[in-house]
Amino acid sequence: MSIEDVQRELREFVSERDWAQFHTPENLAKSISIEAAELLEEFQWGAPDDTANVRDELADVLTYCLLLADALGEDPLEIVRSKLAVTRAKYPVEKARGRSAKYDEL
Amino acid sequence: MSIEDVQRELREFVSERDWAQFHTPENLAKSISIEAAELLEEFQWGAPDDTANVRDELADVLTYCLLLADALGEDPLEIVRSKLAVTRAKYPVEKARGRSAKYDEL
Amino acid sequence: MSIEDVQRELREFVSERDWAQFHTPENLAKSISIEAAELLEEFQWGAPDDTANVRDELADVLTYCLLLADALGEDPLEIVRSKLAVTRAKYPVEKARGRSAKYDEL
Amino acid sequence: MSIEDVQRELREFVSERDWAQFHTPENLAKSISIEAAELLEEFQWGAPDDTANVRDELADVLTYCLLLADALGEDPLEIVRSKLAVTRAKYPVEKARGRSAKYDEL
Repeated sequence: MSIEDVQRELREFVSERDWAQFHTPENLAKSISIEAAELLEEFQWGAPDDTANVRDELADVLTYCLLLADALGEDPLEIVRSKLAVTRAKYPVEKARGRSAKYDEL
Repeated sequence: MSIEDVQRELREFVSERDWAQFHTPENLAKSISIEAAELLEEFQWGAPDDTANVRDELADVLTYCLLLADALGEDPLEIVRSKLAVTRAKYPVEKARGRSAKYDEL
Repeated sequence: MSIEDVQRELREFVSERDWAQFHTPENLAKSISIEAAELLEEFQWGAPDDTANVRDELADVLTYCLLLADALGEDPLEIVRSKLAVTRAKYPVEKARGRSAKYDEL
Repeated sequence: MSIEDVQRELREFVSERDWAQFHTPENLAKSISIEAAELLEEFQWGAPDDTANVRDELADVLTYCLLLADALGEDPLEIVRSKLAVTRAKYPVEKARGRSAKYDEL
């Protein structure tokens, strides 16, 4: 199963329900924040006792990310890779190794 | 390029910098929320004038999602698909078509 | 200095800049999420080394909360108190003492 | 009713339940993000049909903000006012009037 297969399934799911009308980039961006917070809620007071919930909430964030990539006409893997190239340059191995500081504080 | 290739690149990027120590599930969940809000910021006062920023912020959310999937030992495509099956059942086509209401209000 | 004084100052600040046009409830709700994530970013990889930043980011969240209360015509203290009454009932002392579980799991 | 009265009520509520142990600054920062997203959820697909929910979700964000101010030993009104002074300087009336751009793009 490839990411294209999953994207195809998602498009079908949305189209059957006539939901594309709700999926503006802005609404999808809000949805990603909302689902990200539901994921965070699993860690609100410490480690979660149920990792099945963590997995399901992560799936929701990922789903909306794939839908937003689609709405923008972007390839999700391609944008991750090209951003990674930028991040590599901002965090050179010799400076960043073992440190969680921001690039402008390295 | 498959999602496994991108995951491999991300793992390499993290390992070269010795950053796995920072990537607890909780820290990654916080990071997803933080990046999701940076994405949302592009829409804070309306439609963004620069979609390149939207794409880059989405890439950041996706990157942390892939890292969290990895930390949890989950396959990102598999969890999206199995959550989709649950959502299909919660939002049957005949009830959900053309409506943005939550499943408990359909 | 009372909360009404601060609200008056905020209104003046907004009005001098002719910013009320941007302060729809929805835009303010997005702004609260965005600022909340900037606050969270101070804790992204653990305890912050600079609590002055935490204080400033908290001030930003509070500011947008006061602006939203204003846009809704609500008294911020009154709504906190009436929600507290609801929460008291959901989390009775004898059940909730020393536990971080959600009310439906107590 | 002053903000100090509300803060006193909140402290009593927390202390009766022995919840101060959960209220580390980090947990409160997470809680603010979580509640901010529940507020945002009211606007996920457009204007909410129920403003009572908006009010209640805003109350939750405010409550955690007051608890975090307490945990930090900060006066919530004081920090809003001193941040406002900084923002005034960043957004001078003549430059910022009628514009939603960030200060570095004015």
